[in-house]
Amino acid sequence: MKKLLFSLWLLSTTLGLRAEDGHQLWLRPHQAAPVTVVVAAKNSTLLAMAKQELERNWQGAAGATVTLTLKKDNAIKHDGFRLGPTSVRATTEAGLLYGVFELLRRQQTGQPVADKVFNPSYEYRLLNHWDNPDGSVERGYAGHSIFWRKDSSFVVTAKDKALWQEYARANASVGLNGAVINNVNASPLILSAEYLGRTKAIADVLRPYGVKTFLAVKFSSPVLLGGLKTADPLDPAVKKWWQAKAKEIYQQIPDFGGFLVKASSEGQPGPQDYGRTHADGANMLADAVKPYGGLVMWRAFVYSPNDKDRAKQAYNEFVPLDGKFRDNIIVQVKNGPVDFQPREPFSPLFGALKKTSVMPEFQITQEYLGHSIDLAFLSTMWEECLGSDTYQAGPSSTVARVTDGSVYPQKHTAMAGVANTGLDRNWTGQDFGQANWYAFGRLAWNNQLKSAQIADEWLKQTFTGATSSTASASDWNTNFLAPVTQLMLASREAIVNYSMPLGLHHIMSATHDHYGPGPWWAPPKMRADWTPPYYHQADAQGVGFDRTTGGSNAVSQYHEPLAGQFNNPATCPDEYLLWFHHLPWDFKMKSGRTLWDELALHYDHGVQQVRQFQQVWDKAQPYVDAERFAAVQNKLRAQSGNAVLWKDACLLYFQQFSHLPIPAIVEPPMHTLEGVIANDAVRPRQQPRP
Amino acid sequence: MKKLLFSLWLLSTTLGLRAEDGHQLWLRPHQAAPVTVVVAAKNSTLLAMAKQELERNWQGAAGATVTLTLKKDNAIKHDGFRLGPTSVRATTEAGLLYGVFELLRRQQTGQPVADKVFNPSYEYRLLNHWDNPDGSVERGYAGHSIFWRKDSSFVVTAKDKALWQEYARANASVGLNGAVINNVNASPLILSAEYLGRTKAIADVLRPYGVKTFLAVKFSSPVLLGGLKTADPLDPAVKKWWQAKAKEIYQQIPDFGGFLVKASSEGQPGPQDYGRTHADGANMLADAVKPYGGLVMWRAFVYSPNDKDRAKQAYNEFVPLDGKFRDNIIVQVKNGPVDFQPREPFSPLFGALKKTSVMPEFQITQEYLGHSIDLAFLSTMWEECLGSDTYQAGPSSTVARVTDGSVYPQKHTAMAGVANTGLDRNWTGQDFGQANWYAFGRLAWNNQLKSAQIADEWLKQTFTGATSSTASASDWNTNFLAPVTQLMLASREAIVNYSMPLGLHHIMSATHDHYGPGPWWAPPKMRADWTPPYYHQADAQGVGFDRTTGGSNAVSQYHEPLAGQFNNPATCPDEYLLWFHHLPWDFKMKSGRTLWDELALHYDHGVQQVRQFQQVWDKAQPYVDAERFAAVQNKLRAQSGNAVLWKDACLLYFQQFSHLPIPAIVEPPMHTLEGVIANDAVRPRQQPRP
Repeated sequence: MKKLLFSLWLLSTTLGLRAEDGHQLWLRPHQAAPVTVVVAAKNSTLLAMAKQELERNWQGAAGATVTLTLKKDNAIKHDGFRLGPTSVRATTEAGLLYGVFELLRRQQTGQPVADKVFNPSYEYRLLNHWDNPDGSVERGYAGHSIFWRKDSSFVVTAKDKALWQEYARANASVGLNGAVINNVNASPLILSAEYLGRTKAIADVLRPYGVKTFLAVKFSSPVLLGGLKTADPLDPAVKKWWQAKAKEIYQQIPDFGGFLVKASSEGQPGPQDYGRTHADGANMLADAVKPYGGLVMWRAFVYSPNDKDRAKQAYNEFVPLDGKFRDNIIVQVKNGPVDFQPREPFSPLFGALKKTSVMPEFQITQEYLGHSIDLAFLSTMWEECLGSDTYQAGPSSTVARVTDGSVYPQKHTAMAGVANTGLDRNWTGQDFGQANWYAFGRLAWNNQLKSAQIADEWLKQTFTGATSSTASASDWNTNFLAPVTQLMLASREAIVNYSMPLGLHHIMSATHDHYGPGPWWAPPKMRADWTPPYYHQADAQGVGFDRTTGGSNAVSQYHEPLAGQFNNPATCPDEYLLWFHHLPWDFKMKSGRTLWDELALHYDHGVQQVRQFQQVWDKAQPYVDAERFAAVQNKLRAQSGNAVLWKDACLLYFQQFSHLPIPAIVEPPMHTLEGVIANDAVRPRQQPRP
Repeated sequence: MKKLLFSLWLLSTTLGLRAEDGHQLWLRPHQAAPVTVVVAAKNSTLLAMAKQELERNWQGAAGATVTLTLKKDNAIKHDGFRLGPTSVRATTEAGLLYGVFELLRRQQTGQPVADKVFNPSYEYRLLNHWDNPDGSVERGYAGHSIFWRKDSSFVVTAKDKALWQEYARANASVGLNGAVINNVNASPLILSAEYLGRTKAIADVLRPYGVKTFLAVKFSSPVLLGGLKTADPLDPAVKKWWQAKAKEIYQQIPDFGGFLVKASSEGQPGPQDYGRTHADGANMLADAVKPYGGLVMWRAFVYSPNDKDRAKQAYNEFVPLDGKFRDNIIVQVKNGPVDFQPREPFSPLFGALKKTSVMPEFQITQEYLGHSIDLAFLSTMWEECLGSDTYQAGPSSTVARVTDGSVYPQKHTAMAGVANTGLDRNWTGQDFGQANWYAFGRLAWNNQLKSAQIADEWLKQTFTGATSSTASASDWNTNFLAPVTQLMLASREAIVNYSMPLGLHHIMSATHDHYGPGPWWAPPKMRADWTPPYYHQADAQGVGFDRTTGGSNAVSQYHEPLAGQFNNPATCPDEYLLWFHHLPWDFKMKSGRTLWDELALHYDHGVQQVRQFQQVWDKAQPYVDAERFAAVQNKLRAQSGNAVLWKDACLLYFQQFSHLPIPAIVEPPMHTLEGVIANDAVRPRQQPRP
């Protein structure tokens, strides 16, 4: 008897019936059908990877033969590919790999495979990791860095390499082809020999999956690391230092991608310290990497403490420089003019820079959208931005089209996303955070994709069908896929509703690392543009930031008809209303309700939405493994409490100015304003890990 | 112009247009009509007080003459009185004072005044103050003691006296005639010359309002304070010490009420330390105060760590002693057999002690019902207990009737309430806590009063009509009085619902001083009967404490037909179900639902009730002064959050055993069990005072 039990135990462990930890992302193992793969190209590590993927995961006709062909094809751009039911053709090895992943994805998600060319929207599709040399991750909510160690160890272990390989494979599976592996608030150390050594090791592991390695650099590195007296970009010694550094890097990493630079921004050093322009600084670095085909991504996230409207400054600084950047520079622009808020209008720089390559930067990590606690499918937010029409070159000048080369003849195109990965076993802390990594990759490949399709794809690949004996697999579509897709699609708007509806922005808690409400936060001597009251401007008269022609005039940075539309509260869309207008509490909304009531209803609706998400998820239990079910259930519970906190705190705070009652149909507050403010003043307790 | 403004300011301050702090309780000043008061008795301080009340607050016919007559009247018992529209007759001075207050109450609350005798249900109507000599108050949530000072100062200030006088007047206004002014967990210090000096000063201030002073004493005082080797009640030296102490007290306070004793209980010393019985101990003390007409109140709140059912022990210890107590002893019995829980069945000692005077002890301070945060009108709880039929002398042997002398010929009758007063400006922390002080007095005077009437009376006297210019006074009854009365009447049941429904008990947090949920709390080596799992007994099979004949058999301490009714889950009332039974999670309730679903629905209903209270209160705003409106609104908000915490914590905790889903119609949890338990393990942050 004992022997039998032991055998059963052995069997069960062998079959891998272990706790589901989400580590395999959307790349879950399948019972593969037999397939023969013919590679019509010179052997390479990259092609070996492509072949292996097909052999391990083929779900098509048993015994089929699939050919991978590397061949010139004018219809194929960059690392795109041409797909057939049993063939992939491309002009690059990476293209073949992406074609293989596309073929397998279509098999798994039940999409047809017809003969068709798939070209990427952007040449560079990059993750930006805000990972520090000490292993911490700025705005990271999923554990320490996957690249750098706490003890600054430079020993590259087999475990490191295995993890990096899994990471690279996940990127490749959604078409991501580059990674900036350190924080934009860069340490000069990253350019030291030791860190470059580890960078080379990382690059070597990423390369076989077509992922190029980039580094973020500190503009003052020549001083801090090189011992020079200046980092002035026009100084010959500085130029020489960077040229030498570039050479040193490319000797070790011949396909090194290039530099990402945050300069003259939020206290970071930059060319303006020496009276030079952003163009002067960027061009100097661009010249240094040019010989090797390197790229410089120069961030436009700039603002100074004294500006009356932070939202205007990037436009004001960069538009005059249009046309003055080298052609291997891309100006990297955050999706909105302030900072990754739950909702912002698109940055007016999109489309305004007509002679400069411009790339959008999105934030995958949920700095302002609930860290790794709240469930936020960000694809809808990015889709909203990419689909926004800038009108800068006439109608249909969407953010997507003015950045992907469709409108302006950009030399290079790219899209960046601030990564949400960490050492947490499931990579992203919240299991649904994986969907944002996935969605970012898919949208960077095809900026016309719809979020509904992306959610559908991700769910089908990530949750592989009925897991409970009481649930039939045929119910899966109806009872799991459909409602959970709807949950995902509504999730970002729910967060907007319970945190910053109707165009409110930047009213989060500073003491709790941007998690939770903090509209009151304004310590003495704090620079105003870091405090919520600067943004919501609530007073007895009303609420909102007046960016109309009568106010900061930020509205004029938008092209007509937007400027006129945004400038008039009657035509300004509700979702941007308080972004552009300071309006009285009793302002009559399009709904017929007063602004105050509408605000209260939005907050309350957000809370009710999260509760509804909880119920959807509870009903999904039979279709999900116990571990991920419980993990997400616990996260939703915490989010639900957080939603109520947001609602209560903001309504009670703003009520001090409006002096109006909270409408009776809104759930009464369960917090007192005093209590919430007192708790905001202390550091949070450790969130228990579910 | 400046002069005019100054005059206006002077006028407004003179008229007393200051912030409403609730300090005046239900005794608010009125524009009195002229009245002539004729006192047909010898002048006395007490009668002067009565006369003054009439002159200051008369609301009857202007120019009326009211006579106060002290005269023998066989219909009048104790300090009762005979009332007419313009006359009060009594056999005691205190009776006249109570008659005056009754007359004024009826004028103010619009009740008719016909010729009628009003007799008190109990001879002694007492507050027990759990106030320590250092000024702290055990289970006090309204600031420090009104009697004792933090710095143990014995200086009696004019401010002290003014406060004690206000306190005594409030007591007298509802018929309370005694106060035990220190904690039952008594310090021996209270019998030292210094503390007796301050006690005399207090007694001197309380006396003119008919309030007698009592002290709680530590049984081992002869050892701790007197330096004796023993406190054995049969030891002659011990007897002598107490006799001398009694003499010392009565020399200073000739009308001193007597002693309250908590002995051989929760670690307090007592006669059992010397192998003597409770009767031995109580009788010795009774003998000491007998010559002066003093009383001994001996608490029956006893239980030992090793008993299998704490609920049984008081009965087991005291029933064999029935008839063995001196006639100036009253055994003081808590309303329920465990400890002031939100709901308990009545203590089986009521009616079972047939030859012993027994007095009920209620808890006015909200130790287990939300401190001074939650709004709990406890009158309904006391009414429920007093109205419970013990059947000990046939039907209609209610707790009220077996304690007030209607059933058994008790030498003395009394009722005690653990006070909720403190130095907080509004006396009780939560403004509605005043209603419990009021209700306790009213029920001690008349144990047949209905809570609806008490609430109506209290509201009419405490909130004196429309205060907002937009609210018409004629709407007051409909829009304020009726809904707020309903709120009060439902408030205790709401707390039962969201904290300990269906007979659950003692599952509160120990780390947060009995505020909030703690069903999990059971540190290693903690005595079991102080831990919630001892009481809820949750396991995979079910939940509840089996006190049936097949279990601890506590049920047999009740007289038939109760014992049989409680013993059978089919006939046991739902509200006591888990008090008497351990039942399976899928037990079919009278509602047709399973026990688990019923439990979940009760928790959720409690939450929804509090939210409804919030809305009732919000609508009451035009009828309440801004200060008390905001204070109560803030308390209700905090209570609302606490209700959700209770619901989430208990359902998630019990779900670990039931393994059943929370019904879909229940609001999904916003806490995680891990989070709640983690927060329970730390000391609470300071509650902000609204």
